[in-house]
Parts: sequence; C-alpha cells; structure tokens
Amino acid sequence: MATPFDEKGDVDPAAIRSNVTRWVAAGVRGIVALGSNGEAPLLDERESDAVIAAAREAVPRDRLLLAGTGRESTRGTIDASRRAASLGADAVLVRTPSYFKPRMTTDALVAHYTAVADATPIPVLLYNYPAVTGVTFAPDAVRRLAQHPNIAGIKETTVDAAQIGSYVDASAGESFAVLAGSAPGFYAALCLGAGGAILAAACVVPRLCVQLFEAFDRGDHGKARELQRRLIPIAVAVTSLHGVPGLKAAMQLTGYIGGPPRAPLSPASAEAVGSLKSTLQPLEEFL
Amino acid sequence: MATPFDEKGDVDPAAIRSNVTRWVAAGVRGIVALGSNGEAPLLDERESDAVIAAAREAVPRDRLLLAGTGRESTRGTIDASRRAASLGADAVLVRTPSYFKPRMTTDALVAHYTAVADATPIPVLLYNYPAVTGVTFAPDAVRRLAQHPNIAGIKETTVDAAQIGSYVDASAGESFAVLAGSAPGFYAALCLGAGGAILAAACVVPRLCVQLFEAFDRGDHGKARELQRRLIPIAVAVTSLHGVPGLKAAMQLTGYIGGPPRAPLSPASAEAVGSLKSTLQPLEEFL
Amino acid sequence: MATPFDEKGDVDPAAIRSNVTRWVAAGVRGIVALGSNGEAPLLDERESDAVIAAAREAVPRDRLLLAGTGRESTRGTIDASRRAASLGADAVLVRTPSYFKPRMTTDALVAHYTAVADATPIPVLLYNYPAVTGVTFAPDAVRRLAQHPNIAGIKETTVDAAQIGSYVDASAGESFAVLAGSAPGFYAALCLGAGGAILAAACVVPRLCVQLFEAFDRGDHGKARELQRRLIPIAVAVTSLHGVPGLKAAMQLTGYIGGPPRAPLSPASAEAVGSLKSTLQPLEEFL
Amino acid sequence: MATPFDEKGDVDPAAIRSNVTRWVAAGVRGIVALGSNGEAPLLDERESDAVIAAAREAVPRDRLLLAGTGRESTRGTIDASRRAASLGADAVLVRTPSYFKPRMTTDALVAHYTAVADATPIPVLLYNYPAVTGVTFAPDAVRRLAQHPNIAGIKETTVDAAQIGSYVDASAGESFAVLAGSAPGFYAALCLGAGGAILAAACVVPRLCVQLFEAFDRGDHGKARELQRRLIPIAVAVTSLHGVPGLKAAMQLTGYIGGPPRAPLSPASAEAVGSLKSTLQPLEEFL
Repeated sequence: MATPFDEKGDVDPAAIRSNVTRWVAAGVRGIVALGSNGEAPLLDERESDAVIAAAREAVPRDRLLLAGTGRESTRGTIDASRRAASLGADAVLVRTPSYFKPRMTTDALVAHYTAVADATPIPVLLYNYPAVTGVTFAPDAVRRLAQHPNIAGIKETTVDAAQIGSYVDASAGESFAVLAGSAPGFYAALCLGAGGAILAAACVVPRLCVQLFEAFDRGDHGKARELQRRLIPIAVAVTSLHGVPGLKAAMQLTGYIGGPPRAPLSPASAEAVGSLKSTLQPLEEFL
Repeated sequence: MATPFDEKGDVDPAAIRSNVTRWVAAGVRGIVALGSNGEAPLLDERESDAVIAAAREAVPRDRLLLAGTGRESTRGTIDASRRAASLGADAVLVRTPSYFKPRMTTDALVAHYTAVADATPIPVLLYNYPAVTGVTFAPDAVRRLAQHPNIAGIKETTVDAAQIGSYVDASAGESFAVLAGSAPGFYAALCLGAGGAILAAACVVPRLCVQLFEAFDRGDHGKARELQRRLIPIAVAVTSLHGVPGLKAAMQLTGYIGGPPRAPLSPASAEAVGSLKSTLQPLEEFL
Repeated sequence: MATPFDEKGDVDPAAIRSNVTRWVAAGVRGIVALGSNGEAPLLDERESDAVIAAAREAVPRDRLLLAGTGRESTRGTIDASRRAASLGADAVLVRTPSYFKPRMTTDALVAHYTAVADATPIPVLLYNYPAVTGVTFAPDAVRRLAQHPNIAGIKETTVDAAQIGSYVDASAGESFAVLAGSAPGFYAALCLGAGGAILAAACVVPRLCVQLFEAFDRGDHGKARELQRRLIPIAVAVTSLHGVPGLKAAMQLTGYIGGPPRAPLSPASAEAVGSLKSTLQPLEEFL
Repeated sequence: MATPFDEKGDVDPAAIRSNVTRWVAAGVRGIVALGSNGEAPLLDERESDAVIAAAREAVPRDRLLLAGTGRESTRGTIDASRRAASLGADAVLVRTPSYFKPRMTTDALVAHYTAVADATPIPVLLYNYPAVTGVTFAPDAVRRLAQHPNIAGIKETTVDAAQIGSYVDASAGESFAVLAGSAPGFYAALCLGAGGAILAAACVVPRLCVQLFEAFDRGDHGKARELQRRLIPIAVAVTSLHGVPGLKAAMQLTGYIGGPPRAPLSPASAEAVGSLKSTLQPLEEFL
C-alpha cells in the first residue's frame, strides 16, 4: 500500500484506513504497509509505527498485515520488527541491507536474517529487490534461510525466470512461500511455483490481480495469461514508468486516496496523469 | 551445435556429420550451425561455409538446418545469409550487430533486419543476446519486424519473463515463433507462449530437452517443471559456468565429438571436466 | 573517520576523541563524522548526534568538522543538518537520496539540495557516490547548485577524470570546491582542479595524504605522483578490498581505536588482517 | 581515421589519401587505420587491406601508420596483423576479443597477445575498450604483457584515473607507452604518465589535440587544462553523442571527406549536423 499524507505532509491515518477497507473488500489476501511503494525510506521511526497502527485498525483479523521493517543495521531491523509485532503486524517483510553491498555475502545475509528471525516474535519474509539495493540472494542463501522455522518466505521482485525457479527449488520441502514482487512476471512466477504476489498494481486494480491468481489456481492457464497481458501496461505505469508518484496519481484516479508523495519525490506531471487515465480506461471492469 | 576441430585446428566435417546424425536420432526438430556455441565468431568465411555444408549432409530434409549468419555490417550479413541459403540452410539466425551499440536503436534494427530479410531467399530469425552484445530488442522492434513475411521468429536468450511475454504479445497474430534461448528459462518461456527452444544443453542431453517440450505440449506441467529442474545444472555448466570449452568437454563425456575450442578459448580444465562428470551422472537416462 | 563502538556495541565517544586528536596532530585540514566509512547508515538519530558531539570536542576550532547528514527524505535531511549545526559542525556533507533512483533527475536533485541549503545554517557539500547510490550528478546539476550561496562544494567519489573535470568546469567562478573522494584518483583530481580530498585512507595514513597534497600544492608533480603510487595499495585495501571492516582493522594496526564494525558487517578475517599488515609495512614513515 | 566510402558504398582510397595528407600537415605523430572509428568491424578482409594500403601511400615514413587488426580468434588476428605488416604498417593495434567475455581472463589475454606478438613482425599495441567489448585488462595483464619485447603499448579508452595510473605503474621500466584513447581524459592521462593519445576528435581538430600535448610537454599545465576544456564538447559530439556518423559529418564540415557511414549505421540527422556546426564554431582557430 502507498502511504497517504495530509495537507501538512504528515502521515494520514484516516486515509490509510479508508484505502485499506476498500482493498480488503476487493478480495486481497493481505496488506503490506511500509514497503517501497509505501515510501518507507522517507518516514521516520515514529511515523512508521503510526502507519502500521492505522493499517491494523482496518485490516480484519482474517487477512494478513505485513510490515516492512528492513533497516541497514541488524539491530535497527530487529528493533523495528519487534515494534511492528507489538503493533499487531502478522509478519515482517525485510529488505536486504544495501549500503555496504560488497560485504553482503551469503554468509552475511544468513547471519543478518537469522538474527532478525530469532529476535522477532512474528514470521519474517525475505525481500529481494536488486534493482534498488544492488544486492541479491543466491539460491544457496534462500536454501539456508528457508530452513529457519521463523522465516516464512521471500518477495522476489525480479522477473528472472531462472532465479524465481531456483528459489522455489531451493526451498522445496520447507514451509516457505516464494511471492512474485513484479506484476509483469506474476503469471510466470505462478507457473514456476510461486504461492502469490505482492504488487504495487494491486493498489489500483486489486480485482485484476486477484482474478489472475484465481484463474491460475483453478488451472485456467489461458485466462491467467490473458489477464497477465492486460495487467502489464498499468503495472509498468505505476512502477518503472512513473514510480510512486504515478502510483499515487493512479490511486486518485480510481477512487483511492493517493495524494502527493514526499520530497525528494515530486507529484506526477499532468502529462503522466493523462497517460495513466488512458492506461486505466480498458480496465474499468477491474476497478 | 558446437563446431569440432581436427588435430590441426581446422573444421572437421566428418565429426560434424557424426554428431548431427546422433542429435537427429535423439529427436530434435532441427540443428543450428554457426551459433555462439558453434564458435562462429572464431571462424572465417570459408570455414563458415564448410560447416553449413557438412551439417546439411547430415540433417535430413524433414528436419531444419538453421545457420547463424549475423555480421556487424548489413552487407556482410546479407552476403553470409545468401551463401547459407545456397548451401542448403532452411533459415538463418541473425544476431544483432553490436559493435556500435549506442546506434542500434529500434529504427536501426528494423532497417537492418528488413534489408536482410528482403535480400535473403530463406526465412530470417532474429537473435537477441544482450549478455554478449549489449543490444536488446524493444518489444516494438519485434512488433514491427514480426510483420515482415520473411521474418519467422526470434531466439531470445534472456530469462526475463516480462520480456519473453512481451515478445509473444508483440508478435501475436503473425506467423512468428518466439524460441527460448536459455535452458534455465525453457519451461517458463513455454508457459508464456514460446514455440520451442535453441539450447546449448541440447548438444549434451537432447532427450531431456525434447521430453521437457513434449511434456509441456501434452499439458503435463508437473512433469515439464520437474524436467526443467533437472536440466538446470548441466545447462548452467555448459554455458555460464564453463562456457564453450565446458560444452565441448561435456560432449566428449557423452559420446559426441567435442574436442578443444579455438584460441583465445582454452580447453576445459581437468577440474571442470571432473565437475561436468558429476553433473552428468544423474542424467544417464537422457544421454 | 570511522566510528568506534564499545564492548556493548554502542558508540564510544572517548575513542572518537582519542582518534580525532591523533588525526588532527597528523595535519589534516578537517574531519568528516558520519560518512560512509563512519557506518552512518547503521546508526540511529540519537547515536548520530552523539558522534558529532564527541568529534566536536576533539576538533579544534581552526580545523573543520563536517557531518554526514544525508537521509532519503528532504525533511529528514534538513532535520539532521540543523541538528548537526547546533552540535557545532562547520558544514554538512549530504549524499544523494538513492532509494527512488529513477526519480532522482537533475531537477529533483536541485530541488532537494536547494531546500536543504536554504534551511541549514551552515554550508552544505554535495556528495556523489554512484557506486553505492546508483545516482550521479550531471554536470548541469553541479552548475546549478554551485550558484547557491550556501552550497560550498562536492565530494566526488568516482575516479572518472572526465567527470571530475566537468564538475570543476561547471563550478568555475563560484565559491565551490571539488573534493576527491577516492584515494586512487587523488593526484589526478588535483591536476584537474580539485581543492582537496576526503579519504578513508586518511584514517590510517593521514601524513601520506597530507604530503601528497602539499607536494602538488608546491608544484612538485613528480613527488605527488610518486606518493599517489604508494597510497594506492592501502587505499584499495581499506575500501573496495576489505571495506569498513578492513579500515577498522588497519586503524587498530596503526595505533588508532578501530574495533569491530556493526552487524550486518562482520570483523575483518585473520587473513585480511595479515594482508593489511603487509600492505602497511612499506608505509611506516607515514604512520 | 574514419574510412570514407564512395557513392557505391565501397572504400574510397583517394579520399583516404586526401584526408591523411591534411592530418599529417596538421602535425599529428601518426595515423590509425581500421580503428573503431574507421568502421573496421564493418569491412571485410579485402577491404581492410585496401584501407591500409591507401593510408600507407599518404603517411610519410617519418610518421607512424598503425593498423587495427583485432579479430575474435587468435589465428584471425595473427593473419590480419601479418598482412598489415606486409602492407607497410608500422605497428598493429589489437582490441581484446570480446564475444566470449567471461573466458577472457588475464591468462587468456596474455596467451592471446603473446601469440600475436610472437607471430607479428611489427610491434603490437594492446587496445582496451570495455564500453564496447565488456572486457578490460587487469593491471597484472598489462604488467605481464609489457615485458614482451614486441608489445609496445596500450590504447586505454576509459577515463578511469586509477586504471590509467595503474597501467603506467604496471609497465614502469619497460619500453611501453600508455596512450589515452578518450579525449575528455587526455590531459589527466598525460599527468598520470601517458605518452600520447589516439583520439577520434583528432580527425576534426587535430591542431587542438597537438597543441594540448605540446602545452603539457613543455610543462604548461594551465594551457593544457584550458585546451582540454575546449576539446571536450567536440570530442563528446563525435563519439558518445553522435558516434561515427557524427564524426564523419564533422569531418565534412571541416573540409575533410567524411561521407555516409556503412549500414547498419545511418548518416547523422540534420539536427545532429546543426548541433555539430555550433560545437565547431568556437574552435575555428584549430581547424
């Protein structure tokens, strides 16, 4: 989920609750607060807690609330993860540390996530996002971490079919879910054994994402592939093309509360908004 | 197919015929002469012709012989493609020019391939290999070129699920095949609509590749996914891990005629050969 | 400067003061607290303040204390910069936001740094570190920002001679210093017009760095080039080769208080320490 | 030097002789035929020989004629180098093989260049161009190859000050010249110990390049730095900005015979030509 700000630029808990309520009604399995598209790196610790608390109020107990709690230091990550648990999150989603990339070997990642999973009272999900972090999990790192009883899965944002498959294979036999993190690769990931997805586009067209998953789940590859094709343009528009500003603009266009992003991000241009409108037009049935 | 050399380092036509005969018996749909794994960039023009001629003698008319004929210049590519046609090739596989990468815009690629397809009496396949060339087809380039009556498909070597899907979507409705060019992404590419594959690993375990395709073709996703999992270690070993020297060593280990590569490539080390042996061991049923 | 931690893993103000006192005695012009090599991304806000306060106690008023205050959000950066000013820093060094790299256009960077420079009572230095951030200043961004009366320079960590020269040229005529940020490019940067350097290696061999600068300053290119040659092995060892763990180990070997890094970083291996010892041996005259 | 083609698109020996005569009159030390900017990868073997022969007719014996003879295979490179020698070249410039990049280890490069230097009757220069090839010489490769009596230097196209310096240091004491291959880094390379340069921009503003070198040579750093600043815009325009098409257009604008490039390259657009005109305007004194 994106994080809406009020007119003063502060976190807007009422807007969060309103958006979450609509997404839940659309049938999503859960909500991720404080992911990349939630502008988590732009919030301070106090604000982060407020976002989780607001989301929890609106996410019913039969759905999942995940909270992004990755920090650069192991101790900071543990601290944020424990706070998230105490605020009612069901699991934490922890991106790889990235500032000291060349030191983030498999051993370092295993030590980091093991320490976090040991210290956190709720399940931990790994989060692989090399386009941003410059760090990626080797399949062997996934194999080792999947054996930890408190590590429940990985969000994989690449669309590398070989890598997605390797994560599935590396964690076979463990209670561990590979989740697609990039909408254009959602269907392929499901074919390869992914158990679901965490997608920015689901903030705008949640029904399309849910229907794609359900089509695949009942073995209707043709329908799933067709929905995949229809999902791509809006997914690209709210990520690589227009980024978080585009995501928030698209939310505004579809009845959610988006609002402006926080600086140094700037609002989507009028041109971008026009382009988003066109991209959304053929998707009305999913809004 | 790899290109075997004799003791003096020259192209060995008898060895080519021997290998091709075995691959054909294993059930492959066709043979690619002068691909990257055929060390094409290391052969001169006269040698290239000899390879095609030798392969044609052993490829029966009900199978396909493709010849790699990409050169840096459009005129050189046309010349090589016409010669390949006159030597009996069924189609040519043309890698993107790459030396002047920043100039290889969509317009430049469309002009290049259109000129080649116009001038060549047999069908042309595009060949996308950005890891080597630093050039990649935008989906729009594929869309435009797929409309050419003499352009029949693309070999796509990446494992980027979004890109493979975009090529399939961009050429929908045309007589145009997307072929997987990387074994670890074979199954995913098939799910996304690829019509087949051109794989280095098929030089060593052709039956495994053919069975994977057949399993998918009859709708047995579970079997196809399982064969995909088994294919990966040997596929990685004969490409990214040990390269052409590893491919030729693996061929030697499985009864084909591999022999040493041409300098500046050097033969696989004893350690690499040992590792290849272990990798091949669990695949005996496919040799 | 590196940030030493005590046995409990907390910031050690006494160790900071001790190190700073020695560096100042070695003749450096100033100290940077909370840079990359200060593990700034691994400290929380309260700890960051403690580091600046401790450094200020030991940096005499005729030397400069710079504080790293870059955060992902503009508001977070302003807040940290104002606190640094109130704690006695002479200037702030602000790395580019990087999480939302594709949005960090020249306009976005100009807006971000203008807002920070407007709101901060002490001079602001830009910090270009694309190897970590994936973001780089176009020369035009430097040209525009150099005109701001409260932006005093840039730390440039690449060794790209064309870029270093372009920053010097883009800021010609302004009160703006280009500072080398990578020891292996120090001499070349001086030739191109850099006014100094901020170097990890200066934590270990400050005298060597100072002598190189002084040799260049008096026009002795031969001596400067020779000192550059001698500087490279230790500079590489405490940055790209062994990272912050290596820097801290080398400090320990040369009489400073280094200590272990904070997780997810792990201490330099015994092998790395041995290698650092050998690298330091021919530099005894500069310790 | 660029390679002019006649109206039928064939190599134009008369135009080569005309251009070379003018460049020689401008004071350059030598001419490189069949470099990247000579569109060497777009010529066949017979054409390559014709270019060398034509250039030799116009290069007086007191200047140097270098010929680009790099091919992907060692045997092809040896063959081309011997032919160049027999056609009167004074030395050959051999780019790294690149198609099988991951195999181009230091050992492989040392073996390749040693074989070429052993078999070629004229001196061999290494050619490092990673932006095109994806292959780069480690300093240790330069150190080993600089000891070969028939390897005389390296053209280094990067502007990486650390790497240029490392090549100079690695070959210290040998009869081996490091030559700058990128105009924006020319002055910095000279400071670091380069002995000259091979520059595309010298096809257009040879006097500017020569004067920069002479200013440095007589110790006038200020003048050299100033000329460097003036050289950059045209150098960028005829390389990264507009490529070989731009180089040929700029030659046409300055009285040389440029003509169109060979496909898949296409001629510079009218807009590019207009921009080149403006870039050349302040350089009239050097034409």
